[in-house]
Amino acid sequence: MLEIERKYLVKSLDFIQEAKSIKRITQGFLNTNPERTVRVRISGKEAFITVKGISNKSGTTRMEWEQKILLKDAQKLLEICEPGIIDKTRYEVLFRNYLFEVDVFHGENEGLIIAEIELSREDESFEKPPWLGKEVTGENRYYNSQLSKISFNKW
Amino acid sequence: MLEIERKYLVKSLDFIQEAKSIKRITQGFLNTNPERTVRVRISGKEAFITVKGISNKSGTTRMEWEQKILLKDAQKLLEICEPGIIDKTRYEVLFRNYLFEVDVFHGENEGLIIAEIELSREDESFEKPPWLGKEVTGENRYYNSQLSKISFNKW
Repeated sequence: MLEIERKYLVKSLDFIQEAKSIKRITQGFLNTNPERTVRVRISGKEAFITVKGISNKSGTTRMEWEQKILLKDAQKLLEICEPGIIDKTRYEVLFRNYLFEVDVFHGENEGLIIAEIELSREDESFEKPPWLGKEVTGENRYYNSQLSKISFNKW
Repeated sequence: MLEIERKYLVKSLDFIQEAKSIKRITQGFLNTNPERTVRVRISGKEAFITVKGISNKSGTTRMEWEQKILLKDAQKLLEICEPGIIDKTRYEVLFRNYLFEVDVFHGENEGLIIAEIELSREDESFEKPPWLGKEVTGENRYYNSQLSKISFNKW
């Protein structure tokens, strides 16, 4: 139930040719409070409700709970989410046996590309792919919950 | 996904002898905003996550979505809920073929007893049991989400 992850900007589109899966993601928030974020996500034909707790000091680790829900239920729930639905394409990219989830944002967040890697320990080291840019772990404005309130195009 | 219900105070404990089931309920809120309430409930040995939308003008009808979750997950989620966990005993009482859910509150809400009846239509009529008191449908302060913020003992 603990999620440990680091987040990076992406400096080239070279990851696309290495992608092993591509999914369109639409998501909204029933709460954007970082102490108890509640997210509704439609990812391809699947849907999920996800609750996250507040991050630790480094921004790497937080409580995460997720459950699959019916697609039609997610559509109804998205209707009552806070304004600012997020639309993005997610590429799953394997590099040196590590999985990177690379999100290419659309709409109000067009131009933003973020890569996330999930780790087993906070101090776990991994090799960085050449397309990986600056680390933004723990920077609030890059959280999807915050992007739904103040989109990248408004920065 | 629409919940239609009316809510009443309870003026005597006579409902107890007619109760067909009794459960202890502990619940907290991941969001108390009436536009998108998110509740985590442990009811006996079962647990649920529930999302409710805003009520219509009469306070009778609102969108409701609920899903069963693991008891151990609910315990973890309660830890990150807003302060003000609600503790109550729920009696299910059948009267003239209508089911009343009667909640006897404990802790900060001790002294408050509320009965709810779920209906199929807003204008559905039903016979009132003798222990049923004043109607409080649509009165915000009686919503559990609001009781978790301003408890009955503080009124």
